[in-house]
Formats: sequence, C-alpha cells, structure tokens
Amino acid sequence: MTEGRAGVMGMLTVAAVSPTIRIGDLDGNLARIVRGIQDAAGCGAGLIVFPELATSGYVFADRAEAESLALTRDDERWDAVHAGIPDGVVVVVGYCEAAGADLFNSAAVLNSTARLADYRKAHLWGAESLIFTSGDAAGILVDAGFGRLGVAVCYDNEFPEVPRNLALGGADILALPVNWPLVSRPEGEHPPELIQAMAAARSSRLPTVIADRHGAERDVKWTGGTAIVDEQGWVVEAFRSGLTLAAVSLEVARDKGLPPHNDLFADRRPELY
Amino acid sequence: MTEGRAGVMGMLTVAAVSPTIRIGDLDGNLARIVRGIQDAAGCGAGLIVFPELATSGYVFADRAEAESLALTRDDERWDAVHAGIPDGVVVVVGYCEAAGADLFNSAAVLNSTARLADYRKAHLWGAESLIFTSGDAAGILVDAGFGRLGVAVCYDNEFPEVPRNLALGGADILALPVNWPLVSRPEGEHPPELIQAMAAARSSRLPTVIADRHGAERDVKWTGGTAIVDEQGWVVEAFRSGLTLAAVSLEVARDKGLPPHNDLFADRRPELY
Repeated sequence: MTEGRAGVMGMLTVAAVSPTIRIGDLDGNLARIVRGIQDAAGCGAGLIVFPELATSGYVFADRAEAESLALTRDDERWDAVHAGIPDGVVVVVGYCEAAGADLFNSAAVLNSTARLADYRKAHLWGAESLIFTSGDAAGILVDAGFGRLGVAVCYDNEFPEVPRNLALGGADILALPVNWPLVSRPEGEHPPELIQAMAAARSSRLPTVIADRHGAERDVKWTGGTAIVDEQGWVVEAFRSGLTLAAVSLEVARDKGLPPHNDLFADRRPELY
Repeated sequence: MTEGRAGVMGMLTVAAVSPTIRIGDLDGNLARIVRGIQDAAGCGAGLIVFPELATSGYVFADRAEAESLALTRDDERWDAVHAGIPDGVVVVVGYCEAAGADLFNSAAVLNSTARLADYRKAHLWGAESLIFTSGDAAGILVDAGFGRLGVAVCYDNEFPEVPRNLALGGADILALPVNWPLVSRPEGEHPPELIQAMAAARSSRLPTVIADRHGAERDVKWTGGTAIVDEQGWVVEAFRSGLTLAAVSLEVARDKGLPPHNDLFADRRPELY
C-alpha cells in the first residue's frame, strides 16, 4: 500500500461533500465537484465522498437523458478531476457510466494520478432498473493508501449482507454515495436508511461516510442524510452545509475485540448461518 | 398450523413484559411471569415475550449460583406457567436451562398445553461463556398458530446474519428476550442494540418484540430497552411500565414488495454474497 493521509493512531480525516448538483449540467457539476475536492482536501481530508450520480443528477426524464449525461471511464473530462486531487487523497464520486450499450450507476475511486476502481451498483432502486444494468459485485474493496476502502452505492447498503461482507473482507471504512429520497418518519428519528447504516457500522465496527443530496430535484425531495458514522455506529457529523468533515480512527475500527470475553468477528458462528 | 389469536388482516396483538425479576427468587419470578401472562393476555395479546433469563436473573455470582437457579425442560414448575396461558396464546420466556452437565441461556416457547420449542442462545456475551454452553442454532423458527415465530436471544441479534436468516426462512415476527446493560450513548439516540433491531426489522420487514429488563441487578444497570418494532423498523411502543403492548400486521410484514419496481427479498443478489 502507498502512504495515504492516515496519520497518528490511524486517524483519517474524511469528508462527505454534497455540492449543488443540477441535472443535465455535466460540466457545471464536474466543476463543482473539483471545487468540493479542493475545499475538503484543504481541510485535511484524505478520503472525500460525493453523492450517487453526482456528475449527472438522478431524476432522469428517460434513458435517453441519462445516456446524454453519461461518461465513459476514459472520458477526457476525468482529467480535470484528477488534476484537482492533491497527492495522497482518495475521492469517491458517483457517476452515470456508459460502457458499450449499457449504462451503469457507478462510483469512481480516484486519486491524483490513477483510477483506482469503478464500482457498479448491484441493487437498483425504483425506476433505475429501466435505465441501468446492475453490476456484478455487491460492493467492492479498494486498496486506498490509508487502508482498505469499501465502496457501495445507496440501496446496496440496505441489504445487510453488503456492509457485513465488505467488513468481513477487511474494509477499514465504507464510502457510501447515496441519493435518499425523503420519506415520512416518526419525529425525532433519523432517516431510516441512516439507521440501517448506523446499525451496519456498529455490527462490524465499520466507519461509514455517507454523501447524500440535499434540497430537491424535479419531483423528488432529498432527505439530506449526509453523515459520517463512526465505528460504534454513532453519527459524529451530519450535514449542515456543503462540507461534512470528521476524523475517524481506522486503528480503532480494525480492532473488533470487546474485552474481556468477546470479539465481534470471532464471536460469529458462520457454521450456523 | 392451529388457529392463533391473529385476526382480521393478520393483525396480532403482541406484548413485551418486563416484570420485576429478583436474582435467586426462582419461585417468585415464575409467579410474576404467570401474572404477567395473565395481564397481557387479558389485554388481547396473542404473543407474550419476557426477558432473557427471566426465571433466574442474570448477574450470577458464579456458575454454582446459575446451576442452583436452572430448570430442566421437564421441571414440574413449568406446569403452573402452562396453566396460566389462555388457549391460542404463545409465550416466550428466557430461562436458565439445565441439561445434563450443561447450562444453556435458553428461551422456552410455550402455549397452554405444549412446549413448542426451546431455543439455546448461540452467541454468548461477556461472562456468559464461563457459565453457559452455546446452542447449535442461530435463532429458531417455530410454527406458532398465528404464524411463523422467530426466536433469538439478546447478543444473537447483534449479528445481522441472525434476524436476516430468520426472516428469509419465513419468520413473520421475531421474539427477542434480552438483558441489555446500559451503555453511554449520544443524547437523543436509542440504545445501540435497539438501533440494530430497528435496522434488522426494516431490512427484512420483520416486526420484533423486545423484552428487556429495567432498573438494575447487582452491579449492572439495564438500559430498559423493551420495545415493539414494526415491519418498517419504527418503535411503535416502548417501555413505560410492566406491560408494553401493540398490534402488528403480520400480513403487511409478509409482503416484501416495494412497488412498482422493487421487492426487499427478490432484489437480493445471493449469488454475490
């Protein structure tokens, strides 16, 4: 592994960035993503996560519109994103991926010089299945310099198998680009998808960086669930403005022990599941 | 299946009962459990859940004390419990089970005439491993008249595999006897174990009846997390006094659809997990 920004005691500053995203404004969205990277990196972030479909917007009128806003992995417009990333920083950004005749709801994992990975969402929600092809992995693991980064997208994380398997596979932290539509909930409660992420984080000591939309797009209101969840499952920082920032300890997250008698992973009974 | 108390539209009234439990007072605890059954059944409950180790108490001084408070499955003292259960009502009660040289942290599933099942906790927490043998199933499914009842005990449910597999196996509802020690948590948050139960309920539309202790026992304070969680993962009723009661729809819980495009179970990608 190359050296990332994780410092003393495995502390890593992470950022979830929810820039203004305008559907159809591919170049403007990319420019705002680059500005978001620079703002977050300027605050010391070593991992910077953007929402699902941050380059294109989400509420497509039809497949043709999605196609018109798609990027291939080798599109030249990625160059400006790489150029905006300081050395040692890793960025996860949701985008609409064109690959042959298919479109994917993907997340790019980028650093200053390389495309570390692309993840294609495996669990498609709502009308996404009319537009996108589903991916062939339920989350991925990426060697990210600071440690092992898990990546999943939105609805993926509502399947408890996904964060669990990423954590069991060695994820030190999970990057979760989402677009959570606002749903009704009892007063005082977190958005339900956030509760699921908190529970998954606690079950596996998996810090989770959630970048959500805010405001509304066409007829969809967003829940504004951007949050950084620590390895105990608590929200340590939640969306207030464009940038949500916190330091998390990957070293604490890696230790699954619950002394004196327990260990969250060793206590599993896989022969019974 | 025999007819239970589930009525119109699969509505079932469920109760979580947290009686006063005194460590060492086996006969007194049993008598209070019988009174709790009668109170809850009098309010129309068809499923009545008591805490983990409700017959014995939890904070044993040593194994010898646990042994002195254990019951075999055929102990005559169960007769009074059966006698207290009205026809069509199912009771889940945590107890310290003696079987040969072993002790188990078990939950009995009882109706008026029969012992439907005994479940032995598979994931032992804290010093329990010094006292108990772990069971050989991670939760069980019981045909309970009103439907298919899942049973797990306390720490079991913190392993996301357990409620998920019970739900995938056809559980209509989960009975969860617990003894949750109080841990610090951010202001305004639910106990973390309850968040995990809420998330598991929502992921699988699995209503969950949690019977916890309250107050303290020896040096352990309880979190008082008794709650009834609906199939959307929301707490519909939480502990206020001895009896926590709510109606849940098993018919709604059985439907995993998320129209028009999704289904919580059909959307799974088991080939990727």
